[in-house]
Amino acid sequence: MMKFEEKTIKRTEIFKGHIFDVVVDDVALPRGGEAKRELIFHKGAVCVLAVTPEDKLILVKQYRKAIEQTSYEIPAGKLEVGENADPKAAALRELEEETGYTAELELLYDFYTAIGFCNEKIKLYKATNLVKVENPRPMDEDETLELYQVSFDEAQDLVKSGDICDAKTLLALQYWALERQKR
Amino acid sequence: MMKFEEKTIKRTEIFKGHIFDVVVDDVALPRGGEAKRELIFHKGAVCVLAVTPEDKLILVKQYRKAIEQTSYEIPAGKLEVGENADPKAAALRELEEETGYTAELELLYDFYTAIGFCNEKIKLYKATNLVKVENPRPMDEDETLELYQVSFDEAQDLVKSGDICDAKTLLALQYWALERQKR
Repeated sequence: MMKFEEKTIKRTEIFKGHIFDVVVDDVALPRGGEAKRELIFHKGAVCVLAVTPEDKLILVKQYRKAIEQTSYEIPAGKLEVGENADPKAAALRELEEETGYTAELELLYDFYTAIGFCNEKIKLYKATNLVKVENPRPMDEDETLELYQVSFDEAQDLVKSGDICDAKTLLALQYWALERQKR
Repeated sequence: MMKFEEKTIKRTEIFKGHIFDVVVDDVALPRGGEAKRELIFHKGAVCVLAVTPEDKLILVKQYRKAIEQTSYEIPAGKLEVGENADPKAAALRELEEETGYTAELELLYDFYTAIGFCNEKIKLYKATNLVKVENPRPMDEDETLELYQVSFDEAQDLVKSGDICDAKTLLALQYWALERQKR
């Protein structure tokens, strides 16, 4: 049996933020020797594949500072402190805040976004029975969002143009494509 | 026309690493007011969906310190300095180092992994005409890898068991599923 574990010899805390923490670990390699591991710790997030009864995908356009561009993404949000116990409630909150819809949710995937250096895990839910909420919760103060509803073909065009360019939205789109092929 | 851009008022450099840099930006919000953005800058990476002529997917098992677990992933690697100009060469290098194969590569997707706070972009290639290399380049010294070749159904089982749990590998698997459905 091959040994894989990298035991932590020393951890250096670099940054404690609101979104993530950063550490550098000195680790003992399983085959001998040592290495450094730069790591990001993140509380996790949720996102929702929401297709309306009219077969339109709900997308949110927003500015992403990390890439200095806008992008079109499925509704998503970080888990707040304490929400780990009930990520579905967090997903419903994000869906309502960002789109004004509520729904029933089913977990499709639970995946690490950048497993090489970051422990952020995103839960992707599929929404069914979408219903407009009369007085939806307001969105976060520091968010500027524009809502879109696009057809399957329009979504593919947004991929080609690079406007859809993030892993969670592509995963959701491919899931939608697989479902449509099965029909 | 809605305004989206968040102009940087001040940038505070937190960390300059080998894998990523960390900054905190004070930004002017498009609707007025200010906010802080915690950001990770990463040089990008490449990964390869490699299916053998026997219809087996090549996977690499390795330890991921960020999650303190092993995972099964498609072959992948970071772009080294200067490789931005030729990411396909980087993908071929990683494929050879990690699996001993070379191939022809076609770009499938180019996606941000964690667009909310990180600019890491991964290029996902599809390998065709896989050929074993006689004297493959050795793998990186600080990597411990185990190679697997799995059928489509075995790959789905690895998803269910949580052994496949990262975005790039799930995206590759979904692409493979879509291709198989089209046959």
